[in-house]
Amino acid sequence: MTDIVVVSAAEARRAAEAVLVARGVPPGDAEVVARNLVAADLRGIDTHGLFCLIEYAHAVADRRINPTPAIRVERTLPWAIRVDGDNGLGPLVAERAMDAVLETVESHGIAVAAVRNANHHGAAAVYIERAAAAGCIAIASANAIAMVAPVGAKARFFGTNPFAAVAPAGKHPPFVLDMATSDGALRKVRKFLAEGKPIPEGWATDKDGVPTTDAAAAIEGMLLPFGGAKGSGLAYFLDILTGVLNGGLISADVRNNFTNHDRPSGNGHFFLAFKVSAFLDPAAFAARMESQIARLHALPTVAGVERVRYPGERVAAIAAERAAHGIPYPRRIVDDLVALGGAVRAGV
Amino acid sequence: MTDIVVVSAAEARRAAEAVLVARGVPPGDAEVVARNLVAADLRGIDTHGLFCLIEYAHAVADRRINPTPAIRVERTLPWAIRVDGDNGLGPLVAERAMDAVLETVESHGIAVAAVRNANHHGAAAVYIERAAAAGCIAIASANAIAMVAPVGAKARFFGTNPFAAVAPAGKHPPFVLDMATSDGALRKVRKFLAEGKPIPEGWATDKDGVPTTDAAAAIEGMLLPFGGAKGSGLAYFLDILTGVLNGGLISADVRNNFTNHDRPSGNGHFFLAFKVSAFLDPAAFAARMESQIARLHALPTVAGVERVRYPGERVAAIAAERAAHGIPYPRRIVDDLVALGGAVRAGV
Repeated sequence: MTDIVVVSAAEARRAAEAVLVARGVPPGDAEVVARNLVAADLRGIDTHGLFCLIEYAHAVADRRINPTPAIRVERTLPWAIRVDGDNGLGPLVAERAMDAVLETVESHGIAVAAVRNANHHGAAAVYIERAAAAGCIAIASANAIAMVAPVGAKARFFGTNPFAAVAPAGKHPPFVLDMATSDGALRKVRKFLAEGKPIPEGWATDKDGVPTTDAAAAIEGMLLPFGGAKGSGLAYFLDILTGVLNGGLISADVRNNFTNHDRPSGNGHFFLAFKVSAFLDPAAFAARMESQIARLHALPTVAGVERVRYPGERVAAIAAERAAHGIPYPRRIVDDLVALGGAVRAGV
Repeated sequence: MTDIVVVSAAEARRAAEAVLVARGVPPGDAEVVARNLVAADLRGIDTHGLFCLIEYAHAVADRRINPTPAIRVERTLPWAIRVDGDNGLGPLVAERAMDAVLETVESHGIAVAAVRNANHHGAAAVYIERAAAAGCIAIASANAIAMVAPVGAKARFFGTNPFAAVAPAGKHPPFVLDMATSDGALRKVRKFLAEGKPIPEGWATDKDGVPTTDAAAAIEGMLLPFGGAKGSGLAYFLDILTGVLNGGLISADVRNNFTNHDRPSGNGHFFLAFKVSAFLDPAAFAARMESQIARLHALPTVAGVERVRYPGERVAAIAAERAAHGIPYPRRIVDDLVALGGAVRAGV
C-alpha cells in the first residue's frame, strides 16, 4: 500500500466542497473555496491546498470561521475597494475581492483592494492569476499570525507575508511569483512536522532565538526573513499593505486560523492590478515578454541546471501534468478528508 | 590632512549645479539633478550622490546624455503616465515623472508612471519620498545594465533593479525601503573598488562564475541576487515593470551610463503611488503606523542591537545629522568636483 493517493482535481474539488457544505457553507461558496485550494494543489503548492482545507473545515465546524459571512465590498474611489470579510473563509473573501478588482480594471484600468476581517486564503498567486489572464500585471499579499522576527529582534512580529506578482507572458504560461518573505513558509514547516522531518538550516530559531532544524521548536520559536534585512524590510512593507492600510489587524495581532479559539483571526489581504494596455498594446507586450523569456532560456547555466526558468514556468508544467494525471495526495490528507465526510474516489 | 571634506548640502548642490550648467544643462534642470543626488548623500546613500554626479557630468560633456532633452509626458488613462526621457539626465526624467504622478494622485488618488529612454537616476527612494509627504504609499524601481545572474544562470541578465517603497509614518520620518535586488549594489562595488577594498563574500562571482571578493573581478563578472531564488524572482518582476512594460529596454539591453560610448543607455524607471486616504482617514493611518512602530521599538533584541528600527529610521537620523553638520565627502569626490569646475567651500 502506497502512502500516495492520486485524485483528479475535479474529484478533489467535489470532496472538499462536500466537507464544507456539510458544515454549513452554502454550496456556491464551498465551490469557490474548494476550487481555489485545489488550484494550489494542482500547481504543486501542496502546503496550500487540501492540507489547509482540513483545518478550515474544523474552524468552520467550531464557528471560529463564519460559514455564511456578509462580505462587504465598498468602493471609496472608482479604483479603490475596501472589503470587510466578516470572518468568512479566506478563499471566499479573496475571490470576492478579486471579482471587484477584475470588474474595476475593465472600466478603469487599475484597482486596489484592501481586505480586513478575513482568514487564511491559501496561495496568494492563485487569485491574481485571474488578473494575468485578464491582461493585467498584479501584485498581492496577505498577513498571518506573527511568526517571523524582524532583523535585530528576538521576537515574532511579521507573518510569513507572501509577495505574489503576475504578468501575462504571451504564448507562455503567465509569469507568477509567489514567495513567503520568511526563509521558509509556515505551511512548509508544518508539512515537515507532519512528515517527521527536520527543516532546512537557516529557516528558524527556537523560542530563545537559537537556530534550529526542529520543526516543532521552530513553530514555538521564530522564522527568519529571507535575505536578511532586505527580506525583513519587504515583510514590513507588506505588513503595512495588509494590516495598517485596511483598518484591520497587523500580523502581530492576527491569530492562528488553526489553533486559536479566542476570537476571529482577522487576517488581511491586499490586491493591486492594472491593465498592461494602459501602457503598451497587449500584443506588443506579449511579444516583448516572449522575447525576454527566450533570452532567459538561452542563458548558459550553472552545473546541474538544464535550463534557466522564469517564475511560473515550473508551476505551469506541474499543473498541466496534474490536470492530465491527477494530484498525488499523501494518504493522510485523503484519510482526513474522508473522515470529515468527503468521500474520495481515487484515480483519474 | 584628512581624507574627508565636510560640505553643507546647499554648497554641494551649488557645486553640482555649476558643474552641470557648465556642460550645457539649463540651470533649472541642473538644480533638479543636483538636489536629488545630494538628497541621497544627505541620507547616507553615499554611492548614489555626487559620486554619480561626476560620471553624469562626463557623459553630458560627451553628449552621451542629452543636456536639453524634450521629455514627453503622456497620459493614456487618467492614472496612467508614459514618459519618454529623450536620453535626459536620470534624476531630471525621474522628477518630471514624479511631478506627473503627484499631480495625478491629487485628482485621481492613484498614478503609475512607466518611463523609458532615461538614464541612471541615483536612489529610487528619493523620488517617491515626495509621495509619502503627499500622503501616499508608493513603490519604485529602475533597471540598469545587466550585472546580476538569475538563479541557475551563469550570465548577467538583470540590473541591480532596486525595490523602493515608502509610506507616511505619522509623527515619525516616513517608512522608506530602498534595496538593490542584488546582494550588493553595483554602486557599492564601485565604491569598494575606488577604496581598494575587497567586497563581502556572497555578493558576486568572476566572469567564469567563480565566487570572488575582488571588486574589479566582480564588475567583470556577475553579481548574485539577494536571497537566492526569491530575490531573483523579484528582480525579474522589476525587469518587467522597468523594461518590458514601458516599451523601452530591458536590463539585458541597457548600457552602462558611465562606460558606454555607443548609444543612449536606455534605462527605464517605474513609479506607482496611491493616497492612503482612499482606504483610511490619514490621521487614523498615521496613528496605526505610530502604534506599529512603537511595538517594533519595544521588541526584545538580539545581542549587539540596542533597538529594532524600521526601514527609513536610520536614514532619517543621518539626514538630520548631515543637514545640521554637513556631509562628509571623500576628498577624492570633492577634488573631482573641483576639477570639473564645481568650486566647493568646505565647512557648514
